[in-house]
Amino acid sequence: MPKRENISMSVIRRLPRYYRSLLHLQKEGVMRISSTELSRELGLTASQIRQDLNCFGGFGQQGYGYMVGPLAQEIGHILGVSHQYPTVLFGAGNLGRAIAARMEFEELGFSLLGIFDNAPQKIGTVIRGLEVRDVATFRAFYEQKHPVMAILCTPRTAVEGILDVLYPLGVRNYWNFTHYDISKRYPDTVVENVHLNDSLLTLCYQIHNPPVPEKKHDKKEK
Amino acid sequence: MPKRENISMSVIRRLPRYYRSLLHLQKEGVMRISSTELSRELGLTASQIRQDLNCFGGFGQQGYGYMVGPLAQEIGHILGVSHQYPTVLFGAGNLGRAIAARMEFEELGFSLLGIFDNAPQKIGTVIRGLEVRDVATFRAFYEQKHPVMAILCTPRTAVEGILDVLYPLGVRNYWNFTHYDISKRYPDTVVENVHLNDSLLTLCYQIHNPPVPEKKHDKKEK
Repeated sequence: MPKRENISMSVIRRLPRYYRSLLHLQKEGVMRISSTELSRELGLTASQIRQDLNCFGGFGQQGYGYMVGPLAQEIGHILGVSHQYPTVLFGAGNLGRAIAARMEFEELGFSLLGIFDNAPQKIGTVIRGLEVRDVATFRAFYEQKHPVMAILCTPRTAVEGILDVLYPLGVRNYWNFTHYDISKRYPDTVVENVHLNDSLLTLCYQIHNPPVPEKKHDKKEK
Repeated sequence: MPKRENISMSVIRRLPRYYRSLLHLQKEGVMRISSTELSRELGLTASQIRQDLNCFGGFGQQGYGYMVGPLAQEIGHILGVSHQYPTVLFGAGNLGRAIAARMEFEELGFSLLGIFDNAPQKIGTVIRGLEVRDVATFRAFYEQKHPVMAILCTPRTAVEGILDVLYPLGVRNYWNFTHYDISKRYPDTVVENVHLNDSLLTLCYQIHNPPVPEKKHDKKEK
């Protein structure tokens, strides 16, 4: 049985990458992969991979490599992808529609059961086969479906009002596309933030501050 | 003058967070903030913040704290937000439309000049005041506008074809929403990946493996 205590967030954040790569390799018909090839595939060192997987009990054999299918399956188990956690989405604007329509929730551990908005022109429209519901009807929906995760695609200003309803009902897991800092107000929640602005700014920094080339020359030439 | 060499990516990734928090504080009328308050605001230790800012020359004064406005401005300079890097977006599906419509590019260092797709029903539609153009017309567009950054919101399978055009023209900076691994094929590019699947899987892991409570009790009780 895998050991699962005190795994650091940086290890956890690499697991989806392993999973994605292994599924991709599996789809391409690769059955077995050496730790060197896998490390090339992932852009990580072989020892890093071994270390990460050892947190969960280890899966490779020295000199034999990894079995792609079984390892993918095992990492899927660790991630919990077969759970189908009942999920709701708030905010049926451009982003909410994109997330609802694009994500393969079922393959990623979740099942999207309801989409909510407060704009009359959005309520009743259909996304991914789901009719957008009035936020005001959420409590009744909750009583029936008991969602455990909420995706927040609303404006930042709408988040507090939504949390005032969700949190007391016991919804404590959030995929947060807003810039509202949920875990600051509710420390006992699980929040995965997607900060698109931060991502774009990081790119801006990298363009603005290109790396100083130093490896190709022993000394700076100008 | 700030020093800017060999800054680690983890420091760089925190800068947008500083910038966002400081702008928020500024908007709320806060003029000066102690390092303790700022650290509470950011969920980082005061010494971490000092260390990060020291990479760029340091901005606080012992016992005085930070001037919110000037520090925000200085971090903005470091990030390069005033650049207006000419930018294009590929893929006018749900996600591309959401990104085009939602992001405040001008405040984040970029200027969105063109949106491209290859689907006849999308070409000619208008997003954010921009008419969606035929991918086939990109070269001509490039000659006029010289974009330096491309946002990729297409299916993974379309990426290679797009890179075959962009890379030889000299477009080397990518905000990548696909799962295509750009820097593996083109190591001399600057790529910021937004892996929504990975983010969702990380959340799944955290729900599936809730932290073992151990700090509140000296020993496990059951």
